[in-house]
Amino acid sequence: MLDQIHLLAAVTVLGVLEQAYFFLQVIYARRLFGISPPKTSGPPEFERVFRAQVNSSEYFPIFLALLWQAGLFFHQGLAAALGLLYLYSRYCYFTGYRASSSERLTPIYFSTGVLWILVGASALGILHSLLSHYVGLNVLQLLTA
Amino acid sequence: MLDQIHLLAAVTVLGVLEQAYFFLQVIYARRLFGISPPKTSGPPEFERVFRAQVNSSEYFPIFLALLWQAGLFFHQGLAAALGLLYLYSRYCYFTGYRASSSERLTPIYFSTGVLWILVGASALGILHSLLSHYVGLNVLQLLTA
Amino acid sequence: MLDQIHLLAAVTVLGVLEQAYFFLQVIYARRLFGISPPKTSGPPEFERVFRAQVNSSEYFPIFLALLWQAGLFFHQGLAAALGLLYLYSRYCYFTGYRASSSERLTPIYFSTGVLWILVGASALGILHSLLSHYVGLNVLQLLTA
Repeated sequence: MLDQIHLLAAVTVLGVLEQAYFFLQVIYARRLFGISPPKTSGPPEFERVFRAQVNSSEYFPIFLALLWQAGLFFHQGLAAALGLLYLYSRYCYFTGYRASSSERLTPIYFSTGVLWILVGASALGILHSLLSHYVGLNVLQLLTA
Repeated sequence: MLDQIHLLAAVTVLGVLEQAYFFLQVIYARRLFGISPPKTSGPPEFERVFRAQVNSSEYFPIFLALLWQAGLFFHQGLAAALGLLYLYSRYCYFTGYRASSSERLTPIYFSTGVLWILVGASALGILHSLLSHYVGLNVLQLLTA
Repeated sequence: MLDQIHLLAAVTVLGVLEQAYFFLQVIYARRLFGISPPKTSGPPEFERVFRAQVNSSEYFPIFLALLWQAGLFFHQGLAAALGLLYLYSRYCYFTGYRASSSERLTPIYFSTGVLWILVGASALGILHSLLSHYVGLNVLQLLTA
């Protein structure tokens, strides 16, 4: 049974490692610019790193929720591949945002696009499960009939 | 097996869509008040929208955790119905907070009440599972005996 | 089947209760120092309580993700025990941070150490599942042969 979720679990742990990397970058930026907790404001160079981490943290539960719904109800391999793509675009977002506010835009649009594909896959898969359970309608059988 | 979680999965995806709506409102408010990232401070009208999104993001993993425990260990349909109620009260909270700080209060109390019911349902369901597994005590059998 | 996750579910609900406690402390600190939402800045005594809650909220999805992967792919009892240790060190972090910025350091290092153990357990368990499924390599059988 774990076979049906081990790719999702692997991408989940990779996502956690990425979050750990972002947290470390904030710690380094705090040291570099001499901004001790609980302060969170400082020069734009610091605030960009800080906001990049906060934004990635806010999206992390959303990403996990979609990764797992798409993987369980649509296709594990596809969901995991999209998950890797999301994690890569989040990394580009982080390094882009650190360089300048405008360089965060392309990767954030890309990562949002990946999330919308995961929304679509999840919605299709869940809808199929709901329809076949409550209406007795098997869409896949209809398509291949 | 997916039948036992598809309502929870559907509410999860609806919750993600609501979070996406909140993120969009912050982007619109940033444009309206001319507050570019990484800045997060501005007039109270902007800060209320911003804080409403941050608060909703902080509660999102808590909501999902309770939705799934209550759905798995107590009753899927009830958990999903409470989940919809929570998402509706979060929407009222967001639009209320945007209007004024005091208008966020009623819906936040209501949404917190829904979460406490989910806590209660989860705790009862998990306790029942733990008792029947470790003590061999089947509470449901006792009640109907 | 719920037997295989009920300890993880119990620790999850305890984690939610801890988060609720942290949220309440921020509400009390807001009243004590007269800082009404949407404001989040004030005297260091307030900002330390506020940042302790924000940091705990950011780590909560990471904690849950690791708790469940370690519990599903490595060992439920061990993951739940480490989960309790994490929740206890988070409590020490919160009360320490409230007292002074430096008193947050020991418990945050400890809690991070617990998370890294959960990362290691998750990674080992998932790797074992991936290897035995895709390569047909059963590491446990090799070790006991």
